[in-house]
Amino acid sequence: MQDDLSRTDLGKGGRTPTIGAIEAGGTKFVCGIGYADGTIVDRISFPTGAPETTLRRAADYFADRNVQAIGVGSFGPIDLRPGSETYGFVTTTPKPGWSGFDFLGALRRRFDVPYGWDTDVNAAAYGEAIWGAAAGLDDCVYYTIGTGVGIGVYAGGRLLHGLLHPEGGHMPVRRHPGDGFAGRCPYHGDCLEGMASGPAIEDRWGVKAHELAPDHPAWEIEAHYLAQSVATAILLLSPRKVILGGGVMQQKHLLPLIRSGVAKLLNGYVAAPELGAGLDDYIVEPGLGTESGLKGALALGVRALESAKKQAAEAGIR
Amino acid sequence: MQDDLSRTDLGKGGRTPTIGAIEAGGTKFVCGIGYADGTIVDRISFPTGAPETTLRRAADYFADRNVQAIGVGSFGPIDLRPGSETYGFVTTTPKPGWSGFDFLGALRRRFDVPYGWDTDVNAAAYGEAIWGAAAGLDDCVYYTIGTGVGIGVYAGGRLLHGLLHPEGGHMPVRRHPGDGFAGRCPYHGDCLEGMASGPAIEDRWGVKAHELAPDHPAWEIEAHYLAQSVATAILLLSPRKVILGGGVMQQKHLLPLIRSGVAKLLNGYVAAPELGAGLDDYIVEPGLGTESGLKGALALGVRALESAKKQAAEAGIR
Repeated sequence: MQDDLSRTDLGKGGRTPTIGAIEAGGTKFVCGIGYADGTIVDRISFPTGAPETTLRRAADYFADRNVQAIGVGSFGPIDLRPGSETYGFVTTTPKPGWSGFDFLGALRRRFDVPYGWDTDVNAAAYGEAIWGAAAGLDDCVYYTIGTGVGIGVYAGGRLLHGLLHPEGGHMPVRRHPGDGFAGRCPYHGDCLEGMASGPAIEDRWGVKAHELAPDHPAWEIEAHYLAQSVATAILLLSPRKVILGGGVMQQKHLLPLIRSGVAKLLNGYVAAPELGAGLDDYIVEPGLGTESGLKGALALGVRALESAKKQAAEAGIR
Repeated sequence: MQDDLSRTDLGKGGRTPTIGAIEAGGTKFVCGIGYADGTIVDRISFPTGAPETTLRRAADYFADRNVQAIGVGSFGPIDLRPGSETYGFVTTTPKPGWSGFDFLGALRRRFDVPYGWDTDVNAAAYGEAIWGAAAGLDDCVYYTIGTGVGIGVYAGGRLLHGLLHPEGGHMPVRRHPGDGFAGRCPYHGDCLEGMASGPAIEDRWGVKAHELAPDHPAWEIEAHYLAQSVATAILLLSPRKVILGGGVMQQKHLLPLIRSGVAKLLNGYVAAPELGAGLDDYIVEPGLGTESGLKGALALGVRALESAKKQAAEAGIR
């Protein structure tokens, strides 16, 4: 459940207690342990298999490590609604075996500790807001552009949930005039993810994204879709930082193309220095490198522990 | 400044004290007085002229009415950043004379009371969240589709501000295949507002929107743009209610076209009953009719008063 702990409650802690973190991706799980100051001291990674096996493997990793809380950032869609009967479940994913799986329940049977629980991209946005590129800011948007496209939202100092959770990766986009690719989203065809994910690039050009030269026309097309989506996110969410992560963003020539695309699309309408001279410091790569997700999960675990302590203290007072 | 008063603090009050409300539009000002239960007991309306004259007229209306607080929902862009030197100012509007005008300052010189201050569309979203179609919900999106297109956002029980405030009316949209209209946004040409505002409809067809028959092809094109934007807002913001207001929405045949357009675009991807069988109760007209803006301003005034009282009480305790 969303609580009101400010960022400043995090990072104050010393190096104990030990907190568990799970970055649960559709392809790969990363489990780690760390501290309230954001340090990760150990980690493992393994492919995502059947849900029971995968969660057993994660739980085995945490066994005998004396974790005081566990934070999870999971692929989804997932149920985040406090009080829901299926809170902690993966809901409608097409991933075989995972639809309707009680993710948190599988962990709870092994460890009676407080749990943090959110989407992978919300966790990454949170990690960046606590310790990364958006540290000290109450509003940021985090993109992962890789196997899919996901968008996490931190707004007014809280992770955005609402009805379900943001699924911005599937927003409709204007087609690039030179792009005849049909799109590969099974639901929407040519939505953002359908046109701009790593597999979309591979389908369109017949080679993997990292094999395309920096001056290949692929990148202008890729930037066209991402810039559009970032402009839309800026107009709808008014973030104080836009952070672009994920495998596709490892191609470092892409980020400047996106920035100039956004500037062209907004055309000076949003009058803020961040969107003018400050643009290079506004649309940025993750401050935590490839660790936004795992550290975000850690931060969710830290928050869950603090929140549980606060509740216990308040119960003691009564 | 955004505070943490919950909706439940509002609406509890009796019929006193008297609160002032200003719905400050680019064309017309509406001023009213009312109570913490949402009742508006008196109002006037006059055309928006030069800023000094207009604010004098508004202040004259409130004189001798013993208002304990005033809430303002204003056209913009406006400065909402607490602590900013230009907090309470209209910022970069092309509207002659208003750019850089100290809106709240003009009122403060006349009435030493607490002020609520937000954009016109955020105020309307707030009004709907307190007393209207989204009453009891922490997340809603409010559209006005009229002279312009504006989108207000209430997320996690707070009005969304961030870097500036949402300006979603200017999001890029996919062109309708049968639409050759260039768009009339001076910044973006064929953005949402450029294609779907009342004046855009008039420019495209040569007659005013309300003169177009319900079966005119204009409405399918209009719904195309609005549905796209609503689908995007749902995917990025995950609202619990989408409320569509403004003059263009007075054409009652438009709303069902937008709903079916959204359903088609999302194509079952967001698995929530609200987006299936519940769609007619999810994308709705304003619960407050044409009063969302004025009642929203009233709610901002009530909140400002409660917040000031709370602060005074806390200062007394210390």
